[in-house]
Amino acid sequence: MVDTRFFGEAKETKLVDLLGAVGLAAEAADMHFQDMDVGGVDSLETAQSQDISLAAQKHYLPDLKETKAGVVLVAKEFKDDVPSGVIAITCAEPHASFVKIIEYLYPDSQHRLAVTPHVGELGDPVLEDNVTIGQNVVIGSGAQIGENTIIGPNTIIGPNVCIGRNCVIGANATLECALLGDDVVIGHGARIGFAGFGWLDHAKTNKKIPQVGRVILQAQTDIGPNVCIDRGALGDTIIGENTKLGALTMIGHNSVIGRNCLLAPVAGLAGGAILEDSVLIGANGGTAGHLTIGAGSIIFARSSASKSWPEGSKLVGNPAQDMKDFWRELAALRRLAKGKTK
Amino acid sequence: MVDTRFFGEAKETKLVDLLGAVGLAAEAADMHFQDMDVGGVDSLETAQSQDISLAAQKHYLPDLKETKAGVVLVAKEFKDDVPSGVIAITCAEPHASFVKIIEYLYPDSQHRLAVTPHVGELGDPVLEDNVTIGQNVVIGSGAQIGENTIIGPNTIIGPNVCIGRNCVIGANATLECALLGDDVVIGHGARIGFAGFGWLDHAKTNKKIPQVGRVILQAQTDIGPNVCIDRGALGDTIIGENTKLGALTMIGHNSVIGRNCLLAPVAGLAGGAILEDSVLIGANGGTAGHLTIGAGSIIFARSSASKSWPEGSKLVGNPAQDMKDFWRELAALRRLAKGKTK
Amino acid sequence: MVDTRFFGEAKETKLVDLLGAVGLAAEAADMHFQDMDVGGVDSLETAQSQDISLAAQKHYLPDLKETKAGVVLVAKEFKDDVPSGVIAITCAEPHASFVKIIEYLYPDSQHRLAVTPHVGELGDPVLEDNVTIGQNVVIGSGAQIGENTIIGPNTIIGPNVCIGRNCVIGANATLECALLGDDVVIGHGARIGFAGFGWLDHAKTNKKIPQVGRVILQAQTDIGPNVCIDRGALGDTIIGENTKLGALTMIGHNSVIGRNCLLAPVAGLAGGAILEDSVLIGANGGTAGHLTIGAGSIIFARSSASKSWPEGSKLVGNPAQDMKDFWRELAALRRLAKGKTK
Repeated sequence: MVDTRFFGEAKETKLVDLLGAVGLAAEAADMHFQDMDVGGVDSLETAQSQDISLAAQKHYLPDLKETKAGVVLVAKEFKDDVPSGVIAITCAEPHASFVKIIEYLYPDSQHRLAVTPHVGELGDPVLEDNVTIGQNVVIGSGAQIGENTIIGPNTIIGPNVCIGRNCVIGANATLECALLGDDVVIGHGARIGFAGFGWLDHAKTNKKIPQVGRVILQAQTDIGPNVCIDRGALGDTIIGENTKLGALTMIGHNSVIGRNCLLAPVAGLAGGAILEDSVLIGANGGTAGHLTIGAGSIIFARSSASKSWPEGSKLVGNPAQDMKDFWRELAALRRLAKGKTK
Repeated sequence: MVDTRFFGEAKETKLVDLLGAVGLAAEAADMHFQDMDVGGVDSLETAQSQDISLAAQKHYLPDLKETKAGVVLVAKEFKDDVPSGVIAITCAEPHASFVKIIEYLYPDSQHRLAVTPHVGELGDPVLEDNVTIGQNVVIGSGAQIGENTIIGPNTIIGPNVCIGRNCVIGANATLECALLGDDVVIGHGARIGFAGFGWLDHAKTNKKIPQVGRVILQAQTDIGPNVCIDRGALGDTIIGENTKLGALTMIGHNSVIGRNCLLAPVAGLAGGAILEDSVLIGANGGTAGHLTIGAGSIIFARSSASKSWPEGSKLVGNPAQDMKDFWRELAALRRLAKGKTK
Repeated sequence: MVDTRFFGEAKETKLVDLLGAVGLAAEAADMHFQDMDVGGVDSLETAQSQDISLAAQKHYLPDLKETKAGVVLVAKEFKDDVPSGVIAITCAEPHASFVKIIEYLYPDSQHRLAVTPHVGELGDPVLEDNVTIGQNVVIGSGAQIGENTIIGPNTIIGPNVCIGRNCVIGANATLECALLGDDVVIGHGARIGFAGFGWLDHAKTNKKIPQVGRVILQAQTDIGPNVCIDRGALGDTIIGENTKLGALTMIGHNSVIGRNCLLAPVAGLAGGAILEDSVLIGANGGTAGHLTIGAGSIIFARSSASKSWPEGSKLVGNPAQDMKDFWRELAALRRLAKGKTK
């Protein structure tokens, strides 16, 4: 569900009007909506009966079959996988149509780089006791800051951002569309919750996909300086309890990191990566998107996982493989180059 | 041509005086300059009849043969390639002499990290209607900002920077020596137009090469948070229309990126790289400098091109090669390590 | 020695009381301390007779045998290597106990992300003549700034930071726990002296190791924009005279870089790396920690050294190897993939 603290209340809208406004009247011509009101947009997994969701590519299929969404924009080839009782709008370009719906329902999503506070949006933040606010800090209206938290100088806190107790937020940082637990540390210059790198029609029109999700930093997370964490495109980017991120780390939208992980400096996760608990990533290591790294795995420095790996994996290389395989192959190559057959 | 909005008017200077001032009197002793006035410095390609240019290494040769510069500082081995009518000053160390000339003509180029506004340089910017300026924004004198543009809090706009209409500039960013088109988005903490990484006499004296160029961000470019874009050393670093750069991307001086490209987060181009239109670079991918990547090419994540490639290339690895070759070689290595001959 | 300008005066403490307070009473039960006063904590190499030091792992051994520390917390297996006259406290978890001692002696080390100035800590900095301070700069009490130095807008200078003469500090930067020589340049958004990435009990409790060291930037160093340099964990992170670091470079705690080095943009050193003089590292290149790269070596772009290399090495690959070996192996692989035996 889109958090309307960050992206404005969806307009009260009849489904039939919405579909007309975004150019889907023909696709919906034969349907009978009985004046259905639209709640909002959501992912297939969490959408409710008044929400609109999307099934654009093959990897949406498992969630499509289980969805409780009211309406799904669906590519022709997945039409028969829409559960009965769910309204299926078959589109030539479902993702592009879904973008139009987001822009229509959440006008803020298309106008601004990010939800930085500006004139008219500054208000008194809600502060608990003993909060320390540095010089030149700018706080958006509706922001909440917990007891004993310190905000460093020149930092920007976006509207409605919630920060827990005993947090330390560094200097020159920016937080927006974010909810922080207690005892969170944010490094100087960290960028938390900006719009991630999501585009349609790659290298042709580069149409921006509105990013209407959030960042959740659970308790005791520690985020290094100049780190960048995208907010979710739809839904949340989550950093789990007691997980620590080194300087200059980059976390793509909708990544979900478990508890007690350590990501060394300059690590990076592409969008939609899942790290289970207690994963270690070495400096400049990382993963591709839309995969799962099992609990307790280690991705060594400068190595990147290109697919899912089970718990306890130890990975080296690009693309990463089991470390024993990596070293065996390197040894084989060295023997080959020296003209040895064994 | 050096943009004198950013680096001060070149002094009115006679060529003979300039050469004496920078220690080239002996090299020019036999020449007859007839009181020639110096216009400025420029690259071989764009220099005019009163400009001084440089031909220091082999890769300058094609432009040297076609140059319309008035004067060229030239290494001995390229002396015979200077077109007739162009004054050739043969130097032992042409690049070092050229640096002295830049420092003499543009004194600002040697004194400051970057052209940040400071006391005495702040002036009323020229704002069109409906511009929104955040808290604690610092704007240098002569800066121009177009209609409907928003500048986020704590951002620094250097003197004479021009920003188009409907732009969104994030918070805590710095812009200097830059010209921006309409509808440009700049992420929080982005560093646009600082002096790039150019040095002479590597690892010995590390003499700084003055950086007297600009950054041009064409319309609809979108620059992620904490991105760094060097200004040109001489001439421009250019990001083409509708090209999008992810978070923490690094663009070296004098790189030229075409239209509709997508560079995913943590991508990087070394100085002087050329990307034609519609090039895609995956996360943490990039190129070396002084090469051309043809239109529509893809450089996959964590791969880096070390030489020029034609249009439509699909590149993987370090150094990058055609993706089919990359995967075939990896498969061969795996068979080898398993002791298989096929 | 911990610099008490940055981490508060160690409490006047009797050794016997300290050991009791941190849970080491039993380990010290049979010893007779004669009311020994504790000076502070320090590394084995530089500790004096009233200091406490640590020998937790094998790589501490050479320094352990030579230490002049008064007291050493030592793992059981190294107990016999403690020099006579040094009090050895044998612990099950010496590093964890050492952390408790640091937290006890230097309470500031555990409470704050970094030593950013806040209410109560702002004071008049000590400025020499002709210092230029930009708008919205925040300076902590006790900071010193040398003649002709320029501080860019919105930059934060932590308490007791010392900056030399003729320096140029960019905008939106943060400096803390740092000492800068003359003629130093710091890029916009650089993060100098924050707490580095040091944790105990990896991926379990992720216990923070307090970082009570400093950053030393020697004369004529040039630090690019958005660069991150950790302060030492204990002792100093040092960038040598006339060394230049490109944009987005990351330097881990206790790294020591020699004179006249060049680290291109997005380079990175893990903690405790030593670069001798005149080392070149290409873009996105780097090293692992706890190793030494000999003078005049070159680590090419995107390559990373995983072990020590002698002077004059030319290194390519991941893990880096001698460049001739790298290219020979790549050629062998290509022949193999093409089915050639030679």
